Amino acid sequence: MFSKLAIGLWSLDSSHYWGSSAEDTPAKIVAASKIEGLGGVEVVYPTQVNEKNFNKVRDRCQDTGIKIVSVNPNVWSDGIFSKGAFTSHDPAARKKAVEYGKAAYDMAKEFGSSYMCLWPGEDGFDYPFQDDYEELWNREIEGIGEVARYAKGHRIGIEYKLREPRGRMALDSASTVLLFSRWLGTDNVGIHLDFGHSLLAKENPSESVVKASREGKLFGVHLNDNYGSTDEDMLPQSVHHLETMEFIYHLKKVKYDGWVSFEFNARGEDPIEACSVSVRNLRRLEKAVERLDQKALREAQSTQSVLQSLEIANAALLGQ
Amino acid sequence: MFSKLAIGLWSLDSSHYWGSSAEDTPAKIVAASKIEGLGGVEVVYPTQVNEKNFNKVRDRCQDTGIKIVSVNPNVWSDGIFSKGAFTSHDPAARKKAVEYGKAAYDMAKEFGSSYMCLWPGEDGFDYPFQDDYEELWNREIEGIGEVARYAKGHRIGIEYKLREPRGRMALDSASTVLLFSRWLGTDNVGIHLDFGHSLLAKENPSESVVKASREGKLFGVHLNDNYGSTDEDMLPQSVHHLETMEFIYHLKKVKYDGWVSFEFNARGEDPIEACSVSVRNLRRLEKAVERLDQKALREAQSTQSVLQSLEIANAALLGQ
Amino acid sequence: MFSKLAIGLWSLDSSHYWGSSAEDTPAKIVAASKIEGLGGVEVVYPTQVNEKNFNKVRDRCQDTGIKIVSVNPNVWSDGIFSKGAFTSHDPAARKKAVEYGKAAYDMAKEFGSSYMCLWPGEDGFDYPFQDDYEELWNREIEGIGEVARYAKGHRIGIEYKLREPRGRMALDSASTVLLFSRWLGTDNVGIHLDFGHSLLAKENPSESVVKASREGKLFGVHLNDNYGSTDEDMLPQSVHHLETMEFIYHLKKVKYDGWVSFEFNARGEDPIEACSVSVRNLRRLEKAVERLDQKALREAQSTQSVLQSLEIANAALLGQ
Amino acid sequence: MFSKLAIGLWSLDSSHYWGSSAEDTPAKIVAASKIEGLGGVEVVYPTQVNEKNFNKVRDRCQDTGIKIVSVNPNVWSDGIFSKGAFTSHDPAARKKAVEYGKAAYDMAKEFGSSYMCLWPGEDGFDYPFQDDYEELWNREIEGIGEVARYAKGHRIGIEYKLREPRGRMALDSASTVLLFSRWLGTDNVGIHLDFGHSLLAKENPSESVVKASREGKLFGVHLNDNYGSTDEDMLPQSVHHLETMEFIYHLKKVKYDGWVSFEFNARGEDPIEACSVSVRNLRRLEKAVERLDQKALREAQSTQSVLQSLEIANAALLGQ
Repeated sequence: MFSKLAIGLWSLDSSHYWGSSAEDTPAKIVAASKIEGLGGVEVVYPTQVNEKNFNKVRDRCQDTGIKIVSVNPNVWSDGIFSKGAFTSHDPAARKKAVEYGKAAYDMAKEFGSSYMCLWPGEDGFDYPFQDDYEELWNREIEGIGEVARYAKGHRIGIEYKLREPRGRMALDSASTVLLFSRWLGTDNVGIHLDFGHSLLAKENPSESVVKASREGKLFGVHLNDNYGSTDEDMLPQSVHHLETMEFIYHLKKVKYDGWVSFEFNARGEDPIEACSVSVRNLRRLEKAVERLDQKALREAQSTQSVLQSLEIANAALLGQ
Repeated sequence: MFSKLAIGLWSLDSSHYWGSSAEDTPAKIVAASKIEGLGGVEVVYPTQVNEKNFNKVRDRCQDTGIKIVSVNPNVWSDGIFSKGAFTSHDPAARKKAVEYGKAAYDMAKEFGSSYMCLWPGEDGFDYPFQDDYEELWNREIEGIGEVARYAKGHRIGIEYKLREPRGRMALDSASTVLLFSRWLGTDNVGIHLDFGHSLLAKENPSESVVKASREGKLFGVHLNDNYGSTDEDMLPQSVHHLETMEFIYHLKKVKYDGWVSFEFNARGEDPIEACSVSVRNLRRLEKAVERLDQKALREAQSTQSVLQSLEIANAALLGQ
Repeated sequence: MFSKLAIGLWSLDSSHYWGSSAEDTPAKIVAASKIEGLGGVEVVYPTQVNEKNFNKVRDRCQDTGIKIVSVNPNVWSDGIFSKGAFTSHDPAARKKAVEYGKAAYDMAKEFGSSYMCLWPGEDGFDYPFQDDYEELWNREIEGIGEVARYAKGHRIGIEYKLREPRGRMALDSASTVLLFSRWLGTDNVGIHLDFGHSLLAKENPSESVVKASREGKLFGVHLNDNYGSTDEDMLPQSVHHLETMEFIYHLKKVKYDGWVSFEFNARGEDPIEACSVSVRNLRRLEKAVERLDQKALREAQSTQSVLQSLEIANAALLGQ
Repeated sequence: MFSKLAIGLWSLDSSHYWGSSAEDTPAKIVAASKIEGLGGVEVVYPTQVNEKNFNKVRDRCQDTGIKIVSVNPNVWSDGIFSKGAFTSHDPAARKKAVEYGKAAYDMAKEFGSSYMCLWPGEDGFDYPFQDDYEELWNREIEGIGEVARYAKGHRIGIEYKLREPRGRMALDSASTVLLFSRWLGTDNVGIHLDFGHSLLAKENPSESVVKASREGKLFGVHLNDNYGSTDEDMLPQSVHHLETMEFIYHLKKVKYDGWVSFEFNARGEDPIEACSVSVRNLRRLEKAVERLDQKALREAQSTQSVLQSLEIANAALLGQ
C-alpha cells in the first residue's frame, strides 16, 4: 500500500466550505488531516502559502502531522501571466515567474520539503501565427533553467498539459518534458505526471511512467480522471479503471517513492469526503493489483497476448 | 443474466482460422456454437449468406442450435458503394442498396429472424463542399424508406457511426437516427446501438439507451470498446468499465429484450476464445450490476450526488 | 452581404475595459455601436439586462441604433444551477430557471425582440451513474416546455453544446435539439447553431444548417472557431476556413434571415477591435462565397467529385 | 517556391488505375512524371521496389527524370509484423524488420538517395497490460539502432503516428522521436513530419518543425490533412488552411532543404489529378506566404497580439 498519500490543497477549494485565499489555508490543512490515510498536502505559493501565513501554516502542520509535500509557484493566476509566465514577452512577467519559482523553493526548504510541482499553465499560445516558437522555447529554457539552477538538489516536476487555459501549451506531454529536461541540462527537472493530463495528451499513462523512469525523472503524480478530451478533473476511478489499475501497478513496479497526490474538482460536493472516497477507491485498486497473477501476466505479455492479459487484468480488477 | 447472446459473424474473420468468403460461413457457425452461452449470430448478405449457401447455413444452424439473429445487407464493401449506397448519386448504386436491403429481409424471414442491423457505412461525405446535404438526406430517406416499407413488421436497427470509412457519415448518432426515423414516418426503423460507436459519437451509451427507449426504438446492441477517438473495435471491458456496467444496468432497466451481440476485431487472436473471454467478462459485469445497491443508488441520484453514486458503483464493480 | 450582424454582449467582457455587471451594459452598447457593420447585441437576463437597468439600456439602444437581438435567460451562473437548471432535482432551481425564461421573454418583447437564445449549460450530468436519464429528460421537457408555451410566437433557439461546464450536457447536438423539439411538440423551439459548438459535437456545421432548415428550425447562429476538442471560443476564421466559408454559403442558400452573431473570448485583447477584425474577415469570406463558381460546384457535387469541388472552393477562398 | 516536390508512390494506389504490386511501380513512376512540378517519388521496399524490379525502376527514373527520394522499408504489411516489427516479441519478426531496414538503405544508395522514411506502424500495443513498456522500448532502441548504425550517413526520418493501426504506437509524437533519437545516440535518426499525423498528435505542426530543427533533425515532411481525430489522409488544404500556411512559412524559415512530399488517400479519384490539384494548392499557399507582411508579423508576435497576427495572416491567405 502506498504510504505517502497527499492532496493538492486547491482541490478543497471546489466547495462552499472555505474560500480560496491564503487565509483559509490553515483551516484546510486541519480538515485534510481528518482524511484517513492522508499524510500530506501540496500547496501553492504565494496564493495559499506565503511569507505572511508561513508560521501559522507550519504550526498547523506540526499540530496535525500533515506534511507539506511540495510548494508550487503560482505562475498562472496573476493577470500579468495571461500571455505567458516564463515564456511571456513581458520581461516583468518573466521576472515575476522566476521570483515565484525561487521563493517557492525557499519556502519549501523551510517546510522541509524538497519538491516543487511546476505547472506552467500559461506558457504557450492560442492561435496559429501568434508567436515565434524558436524564441518561445528559448524563453522557457531560460526561465525554468534559472529556477532549476537556483533550486539545486530540489526536484522540480513539470506538470505538463496539452491545453487549457492556453489553446496550445508548450510543455504538453511526457516526451516533451523529458526532451526539455535534456535541453536544460540539469538533472533536477523532471515529470509531474497528472493522470488526467496524460489522458488528454493521448498517452497511456503507464507508458509515460516507464518513459520517465528510464530517464530517472518521475518526480510526482496526480490521480484523477476525465473523458479524454477536456480536463474535467474528475475523481479517480470514474472512467478509466483498467488504465488506473495499470498505472498503480507500474508505479509500484518502477519503485516510485514520491507522493501519490489526489487532484480533482469536487464541483460543489464535500471535498473532504471526495478525498476519502478517492483514498478508499485507491485502496481497492491496490488490492486488485495484489490479486494480479504477475507470473501469468508476464507470460501473456511475452507474446502480447490480449486474451490472456485482459482476462488476468479483469479477474484481478473485479475480484473473481 | 442475458439469455440471448450473439456475435457478429464477421468478428470471426479477424483471424487466420477461416477466410471471409461465404464458403466459410457454415464452418464459422459450427465454431460459434462451441462458445459457452452463445445462442446466435448476425450474418451479412450477400457476402456471408446468400441464395447459394442458404441451405447449408440453415442446416448448420439446425444442427448446432445457433440462431440467425439478423441478416444485415452489405451496403459498403462493393466498389459501387464507394461514394455512398442509399445516398449515392449513381442510380445503380442506390438500386443495388435497396435490392440488398430487401433481399436481406427476405432471407431473414426464411431464417426465422425478424431483425436487420443496417450499417450505412458509406452514406455520407468526406470533404467540405463535396455534396449537397439537402439532396443527400432526400436520397437517404428515399432508399432506406423503401426498404423499411418493404420489410413491414421487420425491425431495422440502424448502426450509426460518426466516421470511418467516410470522413462524415450521415447517420452519425443516436439522436440523428431517432430524428431520421421520424422523417421516415415508419415505426420499424430504430437504433442498433454499438457501444463503441456511441463512444465515438461522444455519447454516454446508457443515455442513448434511454433516449432510444423513449421512442420505443432500441432494436439491437453491440458490445465492444475503444479509446474514444477511433473505432478500434476492442474487446468489451478493456477501457470503459463503469460505462459498460452502466450500459448493462440500463439495458435491464428498460427491459431490453433483443439480442446482446459481441462485435470486435480480434486482431489475429483466436476469435472463438476472444468471444469466450467476452462472455465471461459480461457475466462478471452482470454480477456487479446485481451487487448494485439500487435503493441507495436511486437515493444518490435524487440529488445527483457523485460521492454516493460513485462509491456505490465502484463497490459493486470491484466486489468489495 | 449579411445585413444583420450582432455580437453576444458577454464577448465584450473578456477584457479590462468594463466589468461584467449589469451596470456596465449601457457603456458596452455604446461601444458596440462603434463597430462598423454591427447592428445588434444579444443580452443576458438578469445579469446584463433586468428590470432595474431596462430604461437605461433601451435609451442607449435608441441613441445608438443598436438593436436588442435576443434576451437570453442566464440559467447557469447562479450557484443554485450548479447541478442543473431545468433538469435540477431541486424544485427551487427549476422554478427559477422557468421564471428567468419567462422574464427574458417579457423583456425581449419590451425591447421589440422576438428571439431568445437559450443555453441550458448546466443541464446534464458529469459522471456515469450520477442521474436517472429518463427523469432528467422529463424535467428538461417540462421546464423548457413551460417557457416555450408561455413565449408563444417567440422563437427560442437552443444553443446546444457537447460538454463544458458539465461533463455531458443533455442538449448536445443539432439532432438532439431537433428531436427534443419534436418531443415538446411546440413549433417555437429550434436551434441556435454556435459554429464552435457544432465542431465540438463533431458535426459539419453546414450539414447542421441544412438539417435544422429541413425542420424549419434554424433560429440563430454564432460565429467563432476552435481546435475541435475544447470550446476555446476563438475568433472566426482562425482554424477552419473552408468549413466557415461553407457555413456562410449554406446560410445564404437556405435563406437564413436571422442575425449572424459573433461570440468569442477575446482573452484580454481589445474586444471591440476583435469584433471589427471578425466583421472584416466575415466580409472577406462573403466575397469568397460570391467568387464560388456555383454552376461548376453543383456539377462537381453531382458526382461527389472531391477534385473538382476542392479546386473550386480553394480557388474562391484564396481569390485566384 | 519549393523546388523539390515528391509524392509517396503508394498515394497512387488509391484508385482503379494500377494495382499495388511491385510490377505496377514502373508505370506509376511514368505517371508521376506527368505531374507538373513533381520531381521525385518515395518508394517502399520490398513491396514497391526490390531486387527484382530494380533495373526497370531505375530505367524509368532515368527516362522520366523522376528521382527516388527515399526508399522506405515496409515493416507493417507482412503478417509477421502484426504484433510489432522492431518491437515484436518474435525474434524472426525483429530480424526481418532490421533486414528490410538495411536492404532499403542499400537500395537507396543504388538509386542515389540518402534518405529513408521509416514508419514503424506496428510498433506499439493495443490494450492496457498487453506489454511490458520497458522491454518494448529496449527492443525499439535495439532494432532501429542497428539499422541506423548500418546506414551511417544516411538520414532516417521516423514518421511518427499516435495510433492506427495499433491502438497506441510507441513513436507517437515529434517529442517522442527527438527523445528516442537521443536514446539512440546516433545523429542520423530524426523526424519525418507528416502534417496529418502531427494534427492527430494534437501538435501545432509548425511548432514541431521548430522543435525538430532545434535538434537538427527535420529530415522529411508529408503534406495532407484530416479532421483531427482519424488519419483520413485527405488532400492538403481541405480543413486546416491557416496551419498549413503557417507550416509552409516555417519550413522556409528554418531553411528546410529536404523534399516536400504529398501523401494522401485519393479514395477512388484520379490520383494523378489529385496530386496536380495538391501542387496547385501548394503554390497558392506559397504565394500567400509571400504576401505575408513579415515585418508586421514579427511586431505582432512580439506581444503575442492575436488581433494583429490573425489579420495579417488572413489578409495574406485570402489575398486581400
